[in-house]
Amino acid sequence: MTHTRGELFDPVFGADALAENISDRAWVEALLEMEAALSRAAATVGLVTGDDAATVTAVSARLAEPGGIDISDLGRRSASGGNPVIPLVRTLRAACAGHGVPAAAVHVGATSQDVMDTALMLLSRRAGRVVVSDLRTASDAAADLARHHRSTPMVARTLGQQALPTTFGALAVSWFTGLDAAADALEHTLSTLPVQFGGAAGTLAATAPRGLDLADALADELDLARQVVPWHTTRTPVAALATALGIAAGAVSKPATDITLMASTEFGEVAEDAPGGSSAMPHKQNPVAAITARAAARRVPGLVSTILSSMDHEFARAAGAWHAEWETVTDLLRLTGGAAHRLASSIGGLRVDTDALDRNLSLTGGLILAERVTGALSEYTDSARDIVTAAAASGVPLDRAPDITAHLSADTLRDLLDPSHYLGHAVDLVDRALANRAAPPARTTGGHR
Amino acid sequence: MTHTRGELFDPVFGADALAENISDRAWVEALLEMEAALSRAAATVGLVTGDDAATVTAVSARLAEPGGIDISDLGRRSASGGNPVIPLVRTLRAACAGHGVPAAAVHVGATSQDVMDTALMLLSRRAGRVVVSDLRTASDAAADLARHHRSTPMVARTLGQQALPTTFGALAVSWFTGLDAAADALEHTLSTLPVQFGGAAGTLAATAPRGLDLADALADELDLARQVVPWHTTRTPVAALATALGIAAGAVSKPATDITLMASTEFGEVAEDAPGGSSAMPHKQNPVAAITARAAARRVPGLVSTILSSMDHEFARAAGAWHAEWETVTDLLRLTGGAAHRLASSIGGLRVDTDALDRNLSLTGGLILAERVTGALSEYTDSARDIVTAAAASGVPLDRAPDITAHLSADTLRDLLDPSHYLGHAVDLVDRALANRAAPPARTTGGHR
Amino acid sequence: MTHTRGELFDPVFGADALAENISDRAWVEALLEMEAALSRAAATVGLVTGDDAATVTAVSARLAEPGGIDISDLGRRSASGGNPVIPLVRTLRAACAGHGVPAAAVHVGATSQDVMDTALMLLSRRAGRVVVSDLRTASDAAADLARHHRSTPMVARTLGQQALPTTFGALAVSWFTGLDAAADALEHTLSTLPVQFGGAAGTLAATAPRGLDLADALADELDLARQVVPWHTTRTPVAALATALGIAAGAVSKPATDITLMASTEFGEVAEDAPGGSSAMPHKQNPVAAITARAAARRVPGLVSTILSSMDHEFARAAGAWHAEWETVTDLLRLTGGAAHRLASSIGGLRVDTDALDRNLSLTGGLILAERVTGALSEYTDSARDIVTAAAASGVPLDRAPDITAHLSADTLRDLLDPSHYLGHAVDLVDRALANRAAPPARTTGGHR
Amino acid sequence: MTHTRGELFDPVFGADALAENISDRAWVEALLEMEAALSRAAATVGLVTGDDAATVTAVSARLAEPGGIDISDLGRRSASGGNPVIPLVRTLRAACAGHGVPAAAVHVGATSQDVMDTALMLLSRRAGRVVVSDLRTASDAAADLARHHRSTPMVARTLGQQALPTTFGALAVSWFTGLDAAADALEHTLSTLPVQFGGAAGTLAATAPRGLDLADALADELDLARQVVPWHTTRTPVAALATALGIAAGAVSKPATDITLMASTEFGEVAEDAPGGSSAMPHKQNPVAAITARAAARRVPGLVSTILSSMDHEFARAAGAWHAEWETVTDLLRLTGGAAHRLASSIGGLRVDTDALDRNLSLTGGLILAERVTGALSEYTDSARDIVTAAAASGVPLDRAPDITAHLSADTLRDLLDPSHYLGHAVDLVDRALANRAAPPARTTGGHR
Repeated sequence: MTHTRGELFDPVFGADALAENISDRAWVEALLEMEAALSRAAATVGLVTGDDAATVTAVSARLAEPGGIDISDLGRRSASGGNPVIPLVRTLRAACAGHGVPAAAVHVGATSQDVMDTALMLLSRRAGRVVVSDLRTASDAAADLARHHRSTPMVARTLGQQALPTTFGALAVSWFTGLDAAADALEHTLSTLPVQFGGAAGTLAATAPRGLDLADALADELDLARQVVPWHTTRTPVAALATALGIAAGAVSKPATDITLMASTEFGEVAEDAPGGSSAMPHKQNPVAAITARAAARRVPGLVSTILSSMDHEFARAAGAWHAEWETVTDLLRLTGGAAHRLASSIGGLRVDTDALDRNLSLTGGLILAERVTGALSEYTDSARDIVTAAAASGVPLDRAPDITAHLSADTLRDLLDPSHYLGHAVDLVDRALANRAAPPARTTGGHR
Repeated sequence: MTHTRGELFDPVFGADALAENISDRAWVEALLEMEAALSRAAATVGLVTGDDAATVTAVSARLAEPGGIDISDLGRRSASGGNPVIPLVRTLRAACAGHGVPAAAVHVGATSQDVMDTALMLLSRRAGRVVVSDLRTASDAAADLARHHRSTPMVARTLGQQALPTTFGALAVSWFTGLDAAADALEHTLSTLPVQFGGAAGTLAATAPRGLDLADALADELDLARQVVPWHTTRTPVAALATALGIAAGAVSKPATDITLMASTEFGEVAEDAPGGSSAMPHKQNPVAAITARAAARRVPGLVSTILSSMDHEFARAAGAWHAEWETVTDLLRLTGGAAHRLASSIGGLRVDTDALDRNLSLTGGLILAERVTGALSEYTDSARDIVTAAAASGVPLDRAPDITAHLSADTLRDLLDPSHYLGHAVDLVDRALANRAAPPARTTGGHR
Repeated sequence: MTHTRGELFDPVFGADALAENISDRAWVEALLEMEAALSRAAATVGLVTGDDAATVTAVSARLAEPGGIDISDLGRRSASGGNPVIPLVRTLRAACAGHGVPAAAVHVGATSQDVMDTALMLLSRRAGRVVVSDLRTASDAAADLARHHRSTPMVARTLGQQALPTTFGALAVSWFTGLDAAADALEHTLSTLPVQFGGAAGTLAATAPRGLDLADALADELDLARQVVPWHTTRTPVAALATALGIAAGAVSKPATDITLMASTEFGEVAEDAPGGSSAMPHKQNPVAAITARAAARRVPGLVSTILSSMDHEFARAAGAWHAEWETVTDLLRLTGGAAHRLASSIGGLRVDTDALDRNLSLTGGLILAERVTGALSEYTDSARDIVTAAAASGVPLDRAPDITAHLSADTLRDLLDPSHYLGHAVDLVDRALANRAAPPARTTGGHR
Repeated sequence: MTHTRGELFDPVFGADALAENISDRAWVEALLEMEAALSRAAATVGLVTGDDAATVTAVSARLAEPGGIDISDLGRRSASGGNPVIPLVRTLRAACAGHGVPAAAVHVGATSQDVMDTALMLLSRRAGRVVVSDLRTASDAAADLARHHRSTPMVARTLGQQALPTTFGALAVSWFTGLDAAADALEHTLSTLPVQFGGAAGTLAATAPRGLDLADALADELDLARQVVPWHTTRTPVAALATALGIAAGAVSKPATDITLMASTEFGEVAEDAPGGSSAMPHKQNPVAAITARAAARRVPGLVSTILSSMDHEFARAAGAWHAEWETVTDLLRLTGGAAHRLASSIGGLRVDTDALDRNLSLTGGLILAERVTGALSEYTDSARDIVTAAAASGVPLDRAPDITAHLSADTLRDLLDPSHYLGHAVDLVDRALANRAAPPARTTGGHR
C-alpha cells in the first residue's frame, strides 16, 4: 500500500484525471466487466441460465467496488500464473458459488488472454475518450486563437531565423490542424477496438458449436467491434491504438514547443495565465503547462516502439510479447492524455502580447521584407538582388540605402516595408482551416483531406 | 562512388528491388518531378507561360536521366545549405536559362521544404506501393495455405507449451489477417499523401493571390491529395506513413517468427523451398527468408520512434526535426518492404510436413485433450479434474489410466483422444476469414471490421 | 489513493521487492535526504549552524516517515511549478520554522534541479544495487548449472537448426558471461553517480565563495561522487545509468529466451520448478518466470531511447527534457530489476532433463556429426562431402549408408557418431569462463577482458 | 550501381568522410582482413603452412582492392545463405586454389558469424576512431571558447526564462564536459572490442585441441581484445558499442541545440562562420552545421533501442537478432560521427557577439538580479522579497522603485545590478573544468570523476 506510484507525478504531467481510468482498480473493473458480460452473452446463446448470468453480473459489480477485492493480494496471486485472470476467476467463482452459481457459468469457454485483451480494449476506449476530449479542448482553444488573431501580424521563423511576416492566426492553424487530425484518427481507432474471444487455443473449442455466436454476443454486450476471428497473436488492433496515441503526442509537442519558445524572455510573445514562479527569481514566468506537456509527449515514442517490436506473437499465445503490452498501453494513454491536458491548459489561458509581436517584427529593420523590396526594385534595375543583399550585409536599413532610395520613394518603401502588407495568404489559410474544421467530419490525415 | 551503400546487404534483407525506389537517384528524380510539375501548375494559374513550363519539364526530365546530374557533386553542394534543393534549383535554372527560360519560371514561389516534402510523398507513394504489393503477395500465399490446410490438424501452442488441437489453416489465418489489415491501412495512407506548398514562410506570399490555386493545381499535376493548408510543421502525414509501415513490419514479424520456430529441427513442421545450407553441415535447412524477414522487421520500430519524436517542428520550419525525417522514412520503406518481400518468398514456397504435424500432435500421449476427457469423465464422477490431473502428472497415457478406463470405454477414449475430433471452430474460422477477405474492401483494423 | 498503480502488475514482472525503492514514498524520502544533507554540508562550510542542521535533519526524517507528509497533496501542489521540490521545501521550511530554524538554513543556495537530480542519484543507487544483486543471483545460478553440466552433451542450434554437439555447461556460460558483464558495468556506473549542486543558474552564486566546498561536502555527506562542475544540462550520468540498465535487460533476455524455447513441449529439455499451470490443461508447464522476465526486458529498450533522445538540455535548465527523465529512470530500474529477479527464479529452480537432451541429440540420426564423418571419410575418398551429403539428403543414417560403411568400420562409425566425442572445447570453455569469473574483479565488457 | 545510397545526404549530415569506413567496400575489406588474419593465426598454431597463409593474405589484399571483387554480385549471392561470408569464402578459396592453396587453409575452423562479428569489430574500431576524433575536435573548440570567454557575462536561462548572470565560458563548459565524457567512454569501448572465434557451434570443434590458442592468435593478429569465450549469442560487446555511440550523439545534441537557439534572430548571440543563406532572404543566417548536427543526433536513439532489443540471441546463433545488428551499427557510427563532425564545424567557427550578450543581459531591467537585490534589501526591511516582487510585477526598474531606493543608494544599486558582479563561481567552474580536462586521463562519467 505504501509503495504505490502515481500520486506524486501524475498531477505534474497532467494525468491525475486520467489516472483513475488506468489504475490497478480500473484494470480490475474492466476484467470483471468482461467476465460479467461473458456470462450474459453465454446466457444469450443458451450456455448459461439467465439467472446465473444475472448473479455473476451482480457479484462482479460488487467485487469491482472499492473494498470488493484486495488488489494487493490479487497482484501477489497473479505472479505464479503470469496474469491476474487466473486468481480473479478463482475468486469470482468462489463468490458466485456462494449464490449457487456453478463454476461452469463463469469464464465460459474463455482463456486468460480473452479476458485481458478485452479488458484492455474496454479500458483503452474509456481512457482514450478522455485523451480525445483533451486533444479537442486544446484544438478548440487554438482555433479560438486563430480566429481572434487571424490577421495579427507576427514574424515567421524558419530554421530559427526570422523569415517573413505571417499572422498569429496562421501559426495557430498549424497547431489545431495537427491536433484535429490526431484526435480524428484516435477517435476512429477507438471506435474499431474489437472484442477478443478465442478460448484456450483460439479455436473456441470449449463453446463449439456456439462459439462464434457467443463471441458476437459478447461484443454486442460490451459495445465493442465484433471480431472476424480471434486476434490472440495478430496484434494490429493494439498497434493501431498505440500508434494513434503516438501521433497524438507528436501533435501536442509542436504547439507546446512553440509556446515554450515564444514565452522565453527574448521572444516574450506569449505567457501562460498561470506560469510557474520562483521564490528566488520573482520575474520568472515559466510556461509550466507547455513544458510538462512537452515532457510527457517526449516519453511516448519509445513506448510506441515497444508495442511495435512486440508484435511478433508466436503460435497461439506469445511468451512475453503479449505481457509486454499491458502497462505499456496504459502508460501510452496516461502520457498522451496528460500531455494533451497540459497543452489544453496552456493554450486555453495563453496571453498573446501583440506589442512584443510588433517589436519582434521590426527587429531586423525591414530585412524580413527584403524579398518584397527586391521584387519592387527589380522593375528599375537588374541589380536589385545585389543591391538589397549589400544593404542587408552592411546593416543599413532598406529605406535608407541610397541605391534603393534612388529608385523607390519614401512612401513606396513605407508600404513595401509594412509587414501587414505582405501577409500573403495567411488570413486565407486561417479562414480555410476554420471552415474545414467546421465541415462535416471526414477521415483526415494531417492538414488535408 | 566507391563508398556507397546498399549493394551488399539489400539482397539479404529483400530490398534489392525496392532499392531503386529509394536511392539517391530516386530522390533526385522526385525532386525534379516536383519542380517540373510546379512550373506546369504555375502555367495553369497564369504565373508562367506554357512554353516555359514545357521547357522546364523537358529539362527536368533530361537532368533526371542517368548522367543528367552528378549526384555526388550535388550532395557536396547540398552541405552548406542543409538540403539538396538549393543547388538543384541553381542547376535547373542554369540549364533552363540556356533555353531562354527566366529564373522566375522555375521553383515558382516555392521554398526548399515544399520540394523536399512533396518529393518525399512522391517517393513514398511509389515505394509504398511496392511494399503493399509484397504484403499482399505474402498474404495471398498464407491464404492459399489456409485454404489448402483448412482442416489439417496440428497442435496449438500457448506460451510455448502444447495446448489443444487446431488446424494449420487456423494458424495461417492469423498470418494473413494481420498482413491484410496492415496492407489495407498502408494503402489507405498512401492514397492520402498530400502535396506540400507554402512558400518561404508558409503564407504563399510570393504567389499571392494565386497561391491557393497554384497549390491545388500542383496537387492535381502530381495526383497527390490537395492540402487544406501547408503542413510544413504539422507532421501528421509523415507520422501516419511511418506508423503504417511500423504496423506492417510487425504484421510480417508474426508469421516469420512462427515459420522460424516450426522449421527448427525439433518441430520439423515446415521447410522453405530454398533453405540456406551449410557446406560443413549438409543437414542444415535454415529458413533464411523467414529469418531475414524477422531481421529486417526488427529494425523498424526504432525508426518509427525517431519519426514520432521528431514531430516537434517549431515555428514555420524546424531546425533539425525536419531533416531527421528524410533518410528515416526511406529506411522505413526499405526495411518494411524488404521484410515483406522475404516473407512472401518464405510463405510462397513453404512445405508443410503433415507427418510431422501428426507426430507432434501425439507427443503428449493425449494430454492436449485432457480438457476434453475431463469434460466427458465429469458426467460420471465429481473428481474428473483430479483424476485426469493425476494421470497427467504420473505420465500414464489417459487411455490406460485405471480411474479413467473404469468409466470410459476404449472406443469412447479413442474418439475423445482423436485431435481431429476436437478442432472447435478452427475450420469455421478459416472459412470466415477467407470469406471476409474476398468481401468488398472496407477499412479494417486487425482481424475485425 | 484508490487510483494508484503498481500493486496489480509488479509481482507478475518481478518488481514487487523493488517497488519500495522507486515508489512515490521513495522519491519523497530521497528528496528529504538530500535537503537534510545539504543543511549539514552547509554547516560544515559554515553557512548554517550545526544546531539548525541537526534540526533540519530530524524534521526531514520525521517527514519522511509514513504519515509524515501527504504525498497525494504534495503531488497536487507540485503541478503549478512543475516539480515536487517547490512545495516540499515550503513544507519543510514551515516545519523547521516551528523549531526556530530560519528559512535560510533549508535548501541552502539550491535550485529544484539540484534536489531532484541528487535524489534521483540516491534512489537509483539504492534500487540499482537491488538490480545488481538480482543479476548476480541469476548469474550464480547459471554458473552452478555450468559447473554441474560442464560435460553434459546437448545439441547446439544455429538459426533454429540442430548444428553440432555442445554441452549444457557451454550454453550456461553464454548466460552468465552476459549477466556478469552487465552486472559489473552497472555496479561500476552506480559507484560513479555524482551529486548535483549548482544553484539557480549553475553558478552557485547564492553560496559563493563557499559554493564549491559546499558541493563537495554535500557529496561526501551522501557518499556520492563529487562533481567537477554542475551537470544540470550535461546528462551523461543519467544516460550512462540508463544504458547500463538497458544492457542488463538485454543480458537477461538471452537466457530467458533460451529457457522459454527449451521448455516448450517439443524440446522438453528444461522445466521451471514452479511452472504456471492451467486449470483446463493439466499438462501445461508454462515457464512463467522466464516468460515474464522476457516481457519485462522487452519494455526496456524504448525507455533507454527516451533518455538518450532527451539529452538535448538547452541552456541552463531544459524545458521538458529534464522532466522526462524522472519516471523513465525509475521504470528502467523497475523493469530491469524485475526481469533479473524473475530470471533468477527461473534459473535457480531449473530442472534439466538429460534424457531429453540425449533424445534430441539423436534426432537427426547422426547428421549433426556429418562434419566429423566427412573429415574421417576424406582420408579414403575425394568424394567424402558428396557421399555424406547424399546420405543426408536421402535420409539414410550415416552408419548404414553403403558408400560410407564401405570405408569406415562399424566401430569407427560408432565412435565418430558419438556426440560426446565431438565436443571440441566445450568443456574447456566452461572451465575458462568459471575461472575468469572467480578471478579478481576487473572492468569487463562482454565475455572478454 | 545506379541505385546506391549515401552520396546525396552524407555531406549534409557530416558523414561524407566517415562514409568510406562503413561502406559496402569497407565491409568487404574487413571481412577479407579477418580471413587473411585467420589463415596467419592458423599458421602460428600449426594448422596451416606459413606459405599458404602468406598466399591467402596476398590474395585477400588483392580482392579487397577496387575492382578486386564485384560487390553487387557478392550481394546477390549473399541472399540465399543470409550473409556475405558464404559466397565470399567460396570466391576466396577459388582464388587461392589457383595458387595451390587447399580449401582447408582458408576460413580455418570458422563459421560465418566469426567472420561477420570480427569484421564488425574491425570496422567499428576504425570508424569509431573517426567519431572520437570529431568529438574531440568539437570539445577542443568548446574548451577554447570557454577559455576565451571564461568571464564574458551572459544571461543564464532556465526553462526558457532569463534567470541569473553567468559567463559564456560556463556555458561552454557544459558543452565540452559532455563531449569529453562521451569521447572517453567511446574510446574505452573501442579499446575493448573483442575478436570472435567459436566455429560452427561455438565449441571450436573443428580446430580442437588448438582452438583456444588459435582464437588468441587471431586476436593478436588483429590487435583486438582476446575473447574469454566466444560471444556469438552474448551481445554485450555490441550493446556497449551502440550505447557509447548513443551517449555521444546525446552529448552532441546539447551544444547543437544551444547554438541553434542562440543564433536565432531574437537572441542573436552567436553565428556560424559559414551559415546557410537563402537566395530570397538575404538576411538569413541559418546555423546549418548545428542544425544538421541536431538532425543526425536525433536519429541515433531509435537505433540504440534496436540493438538493445536485439540482444535476445537464442541458442548458439540467433535467427534474425544477429542479422539486425549489421547495418544498425554502421548507421550508428555514421550518424553519431556525422553529428560530431557537423558540431565541430559549428563550434570551431562560432562567432560570439558580446554586444548581443550584453543587450540580452539588460533586457529585464535588472530583474535577473532580483535575488541579489532582495538579499541586500533584507538587511533593512523584513519585506524585502515583497518589495522586489512588487517592483518586478509592476515593471518598474529596480533602481527606480521608491521602496528600494529608500534603502539602497544609487551607487549600491549600480553595483548590485551589475551582472558581472554576480557571477558566483562561474569563472571558477571554467578553470576547474579546464584543469580537469588537462589532467591525466581517467575514466569519467559526466562532468565528474
